[in-house]
Amino acid sequence: MTTIDLNCDMGEGFGRYSFGVDEQMMPYISSANIACGFHAGDFSTMNQTVQLALKHNVAIGAHPGFPDRQGFGRREMMMLPTEIYELVLYQIGALQAFVQANGGKLHHVKPHGALYNMAAQNSEIAEAIAKAVYQISPNLILYGLANSELTKAGERLGLPVAHEVFADRTYQPNGTLTPRTEPNALITNEQLVIDQVLHIVRHGFVRAVDGTLVPIHADTVCIHGDGEKAVLFADKLNKALVKNGVTVRALNT
Amino acid sequence: MTTIDLNCDMGEGFGRYSFGVDEQMMPYISSANIACGFHAGDFSTMNQTVQLALKHNVAIGAHPGFPDRQGFGRREMMMLPTEIYELVLYQIGALQAFVQANGGKLHHVKPHGALYNMAAQNSEIAEAIAKAVYQISPNLILYGLANSELTKAGERLGLPVAHEVFADRTYQPNGTLTPRTEPNALITNEQLVIDQVLHIVRHGFVRAVDGTLVPIHADTVCIHGDGEKAVLFADKLNKALVKNGVTVRALNT
Amino acid sequence: MTTIDLNCDMGEGFGRYSFGVDEQMMPYISSANIACGFHAGDFSTMNQTVQLALKHNVAIGAHPGFPDRQGFGRREMMMLPTEIYELVLYQIGALQAFVQANGGKLHHVKPHGALYNMAAQNSEIAEAIAKAVYQISPNLILYGLANSELTKAGERLGLPVAHEVFADRTYQPNGTLTPRTEPNALITNEQLVIDQVLHIVRHGFVRAVDGTLVPIHADTVCIHGDGEKAVLFADKLNKALVKNGVTVRALNT
Amino acid sequence: MTTIDLNCDMGEGFGRYSFGVDEQMMPYISSANIACGFHAGDFSTMNQTVQLALKHNVAIGAHPGFPDRQGFGRREMMMLPTEIYELVLYQIGALQAFVQANGGKLHHVKPHGALYNMAAQNSEIAEAIAKAVYQISPNLILYGLANSELTKAGERLGLPVAHEVFADRTYQPNGTLTPRTEPNALITNEQLVIDQVLHIVRHGFVRAVDGTLVPIHADTVCIHGDGEKAVLFADKLNKALVKNGVTVRALNT
Repeated sequence: MTTIDLNCDMGEGFGRYSFGVDEQMMPYISSANIACGFHAGDFSTMNQTVQLALKHNVAIGAHPGFPDRQGFGRREMMMLPTEIYELVLYQIGALQAFVQANGGKLHHVKPHGALYNMAAQNSEIAEAIAKAVYQISPNLILYGLANSELTKAGERLGLPVAHEVFADRTYQPNGTLTPRTEPNALITNEQLVIDQVLHIVRHGFVRAVDGTLVPIHADTVCIHGDGEKAVLFADKLNKALVKNGVTVRALNT
Repeated sequence: MTTIDLNCDMGEGFGRYSFGVDEQMMPYISSANIACGFHAGDFSTMNQTVQLALKHNVAIGAHPGFPDRQGFGRREMMMLPTEIYELVLYQIGALQAFVQANGGKLHHVKPHGALYNMAAQNSEIAEAIAKAVYQISPNLILYGLANSELTKAGERLGLPVAHEVFADRTYQPNGTLTPRTEPNALITNEQLVIDQVLHIVRHGFVRAVDGTLVPIHADTVCIHGDGEKAVLFADKLNKALVKNGVTVRALNT
Repeated sequence: MTTIDLNCDMGEGFGRYSFGVDEQMMPYISSANIACGFHAGDFSTMNQTVQLALKHNVAIGAHPGFPDRQGFGRREMMMLPTEIYELVLYQIGALQAFVQANGGKLHHVKPHGALYNMAAQNSEIAEAIAKAVYQISPNLILYGLANSELTKAGERLGLPVAHEVFADRTYQPNGTLTPRTEPNALITNEQLVIDQVLHIVRHGFVRAVDGTLVPIHADTVCIHGDGEKAVLFADKLNKALVKNGVTVRALNT
Repeated sequence: MTTIDLNCDMGEGFGRYSFGVDEQMMPYISSANIACGFHAGDFSTMNQTVQLALKHNVAIGAHPGFPDRQGFGRREMMMLPTEIYELVLYQIGALQAFVQANGGKLHHVKPHGALYNMAAQNSEIAEAIAKAVYQISPNLILYGLANSELTKAGERLGLPVAHEVFADRTYQPNGTLTPRTEPNALITNEQLVIDQVLHIVRHGFVRAVDGTLVPIHADTVCIHGDGEKAVLFADKLNKALVKNGVTVRALNT
């Protein structure tokens, strides 16, 4: 039986500010990455989002980011690996308290934004993050860009790792994502996005921008939880996966 | 055998700012209340302070406060009890991650500043804090002002509770602290401070400002970790306790 | 000729978070209170909002608040009057820089949320705010709750003052607002809201909750810029005022 | 008559945290760069530091930095030039309010830390900063690393510019500072530091690390206001300058 995890960033509101449509997205995903109060989220939003995920039986992950609310964690900040280790440890711990208080179990950790991107390319940062995850529990699953420095760092430590692909991003012949600065970085046609996901999940290949078929393994697919069409798209993708015999389920659940 | 715990606020630096003389104080105390990054402290300071406490075999407590660095957590903020619950849960979780990563065990929770004072008087706030502590672990010790709403709330929940007294504060005939706004709120003479601590610890009484003897039970004594004479005083107090047959040790250790 | 100012809080977004529909509201108001980066807003939002107000020929005011984004400046914070003075001075200065850089002129200052409410009742806080405004310029108009400590403090200093009324709030027989904790604090029927505004503006009276007519002078009316119906209501109110011979215009413009 | 400006970073405390010995340094400097509440400082510290500078007749400058207290503004943050423009405008405006309220006049602007270093090398960032300064007033003096992109950007706009040298840093044959990562980046011998300053100020040359003499023009010398020996060194440097016929005075004063 083919299975795939659909993950989505959640709990990104802050105080009176709302962001995304978490409640509407929950039925269509199998794992939620919950912001931990640094780049987004706060203690109240975290508590509510954890409860929402538990109600929908969605696996809960910590989604640590840089301490930069204004930049939404998308701006690179020059930190030492030891600081990154501490930054991630702090945020996992904070989220874990809400998971525990609500009777749940922390399932995974996925770094956010600039931290995710830096960890994909920089092995020292990747190792700092993997080490923080490992210290909390060697059973936590580390989500990272498929075949990146982050997944490699997790595998070296013996952590369970989820290789992540992006539904609406195009790929280069060497298997990397086309940079967002390129005009063809995003797939905007919904059907093509769904086709790409199905192709990756069922066949283990993605068609790169030059037409070549590139082998790629995906454990989890990231979908967006904000934007007008997010819920409709999630519904369509779910139905297409089921119709093609793919079960949507979080790893190790 | 008579024992008493000496506790001290620690880890109150932030970024390039230092505060207090944590390393010098460690040999004289039995438990450390470590700031959790809201009113003071940050993820790096927390990690270092946890390591320092472990090295000195000092019991580690979370020291959650209001999210107000500029006011050092000393300004009252009007939050709902449910927000206070979430505020405290977040901070305990964050600190616990560092304790766990360094191979230690979280020992207690003591709210800071305005949160401590509000919890001493307001039963709803007290219950919110006690509940957060309980959700993390029913074995965590809740530190609160002796005979306050906070210790009562902890006792109602079945938490182990440490009744706290202040070495250098004077007491009213009804057993409450003389408000800081009163001219005689503080004892400035070191010997008198030490005498008061010895009297409370050995005899279970404190002499109030009007000369009457008031019964008071103390599990832990709070001493200051900043100020020029903090280390010298801690040394003197320790020696006086030992000389009088009192063992300095954290509860349940 | 009868004139009235319609003011609205603006620029309350933050980073990637949006709030309210500033651009759509601008055609219907005569003055904008722009958040200054403490309770809401940031340097980019401030610049854009100032430019938007200038484009629509809307008078620009600084809208200083408590340093509490999570609480949106609606939680009381215990600060000394001298700190309030500095808090307000800082925020006016910051906004003024954008007004100046865009070729405009700062028109007024209106404190936000808990600071507004505290200033309405506490003469020391009111004086601290009025003094900060005066130091920037004795020609700046101070907006405050009609007949409150804040307007009185401004008048004592010789500042031009705008007495503010709220379109959708009910009034007590003594001329104060019905507290939000009361069930009848808000008028929800749009036509009744418009009737109340017209009555206050044209006749100088408001009908209190017990039916008595209470004299009230209004220089400016606060309307909301968020919520689904904000724009529609602003349009209706504008048309009703014009139809009744009232000109919508900011003071001293 | 030869004159030179001695500038020092000031007002870098925050809430209960103190930093540096501002009051003791004031007698020895001619201009103060005052932190504006982003990387350091706060509204109370700014007000006090402005008053201190006015009392000592020291020229007042705004010292804007990145919004990163934990990193003290020393970590690079990836911002767009337009955001840098707004960031700087905000902070100058905030400081100017305190200068104006205390009857003074803003004299200069010097970016802090990572922002200073990025502006020295990146012409777009340099132009964004220079433009913000110019919009506040074309008479404000822009302080920047001697012969850097920042001073060039200021000169292109027609701003008065102060070329800055560092007393205790070594220079490369091409006139740039030896990077801090190099072992010989700092001059630790006080007498050599004073000799270097005297040589630059009196002769317009600096001896580079390879022994060659490199022409350098200095309008202002940066000295440190923290560290044990800061005050003693400032005193010595002052005396050495006076003894060699150099007057310590801020530009255009």
